[in-house]
Amino acid sequence: MQSEQTGGQERDDRDFVASLEKGLLVIEAFDASRPRLTLSDVAKITGITRAAARRYLRTLTRLNYADFDGRYFSLSPRILRLGYAYLSSTALSTRLQPFLERISEETGESSSAAVLDGDDIVYIARSATRRIMSIGLGVGSRLPAYCTSLGRAILAFRPPETVETYLERVTLEPRTPETITDKDQFRAVLEATRQHGYAIVNEELELGLRSIAVPLVQKNGHVSIALNVSAQAARVPASEMEERFLPSLKAASDALRYTL
Amino acid sequence: MQSEQTGGQERDDRDFVASLEKGLLVIEAFDASRPRLTLSDVAKITGITRAAARRYLRTLTRLNYADFDGRYFSLSPRILRLGYAYLSSTALSTRLQPFLERISEETGESSSAAVLDGDDIVYIARSATRRIMSIGLGVGSRLPAYCTSLGRAILAFRPPETVETYLERVTLEPRTPETITDKDQFRAVLEATRQHGYAIVNEELELGLRSIAVPLVQKNGHVSIALNVSAQAARVPASEMEERFLPSLKAASDALRYTL
Repeated sequence: MQSEQTGGQERDDRDFVASLEKGLLVIEAFDASRPRLTLSDVAKITGITRAAARRYLRTLTRLNYADFDGRYFSLSPRILRLGYAYLSSTALSTRLQPFLERISEETGESSSAAVLDGDDIVYIARSATRRIMSIGLGVGSRLPAYCTSLGRAILAFRPPETVETYLERVTLEPRTPETITDKDQFRAVLEATRQHGYAIVNEELELGLRSIAVPLVQKNGHVSIALNVSAQAARVPASEMEERFLPSLKAASDALRYTL
Repeated sequence: MQSEQTGGQERDDRDFVASLEKGLLVIEAFDASRPRLTLSDVAKITGITRAAARRYLRTLTRLNYADFDGRYFSLSPRILRLGYAYLSSTALSTRLQPFLERISEETGESSSAAVLDGDDIVYIARSATRRIMSIGLGVGSRLPAYCTSLGRAILAFRPPETVETYLERVTLEPRTPETITDKDQFRAVLEATRQHGYAIVNEELELGLRSIAVPLVQKNGHVSIALNVSAQAARVPASEMEERFLPSLKAASDALRYTL
């Protein structure tokens, strides 16, 4: 085991493989704003020493998880095997896709499913219509949970202490002038979501965009998945969101209840 | 570094981090047929010692990449960050999605984009219509390259020596009675694909399913992505595939040429 820094908590655990943690950090260093990275970039982003970063990158390249053009490293398609190990092992996307397509067909709008991962929601399936403004949300896209209907539909059905820890950790950044940034107001909105069984977000993520989401109760009785419909505010008045979209969403979440 | 087995080639490389390789193997051990694994399962599947597998699983659990219920390990949504590091860093899915949606709209059929990863194609974006039989191909799904139009459209534009190595490695298993399993016949089909600029696969992957694919020439002049349209054989005669679907596919591949 290397002597480089690891979290203090982990250092106590003799079973913790620090080099696996660092290898995964190196993979996560690449993203849309940083698709190609030099060795120095990776060392800086991850906080890993240059010598160690070099070993992780060489290992990833040797295993075909990354490419190197002599100066820049980039990830290769083999990396998809890792993320999709989750999707295929849970079969979530495959199971959800036909339901989203039905919702999308019934409503004429885009429908998505997401899971909560840390403080973000991650899209795991999506049925898009061309009518919606394309906000580029493919499977795997991440958004903060607090300002999305999907995130609120999940958070509302989490234990209160989880929500409190979440609120201590995150800042409710205003994404638009409509974004709820006050924590008490946010708690009240979650309480309403719990009571009604669905979450509506009106232009809090992006001006001109509304969405409505319902939680999916899973096999274990917990909620970590939600389904939504999103629509352009210009075409669908806020008052019509429940009436037009909720029946399709409820039908899908009822059909999927306890099955995933 | 542990003394457990690694490939002979890697053992020579002092820079190779064997424990990263094994951690990634552990992640890939989970799939649709094995979503929940015990420690012994993981050791057996990966060929890693039980003691080592335990350390990797504990590390993944500690880092929230995996969950443990006391007996079974399963992957958690955080794993998606790894696979999507590739998708978001290349921005491929986001860039391709609007083109697939247009193709799908113009043709009334499902359209997909895939990359070649080893001997498989991996779906990286998809626009599905409900008309197509649902063969459950979400983003991240893998299929053998040889019996798919997407795979052939890519292989045809790879260097001849790459194709020969590929043909030495793989067996052209008959997925249906139509599947081309003879290697000389396969070479001839690739040559025709190269000449025509597109690949058609008629019921070689699945009876009742046809598809047509075009290669995408990327920024570096290479081809590792293809776009396709697939349709039910019962609705679209083989003779109409080019006429009905090729113009939309060509328009997209021309527009995307040298841009990705």
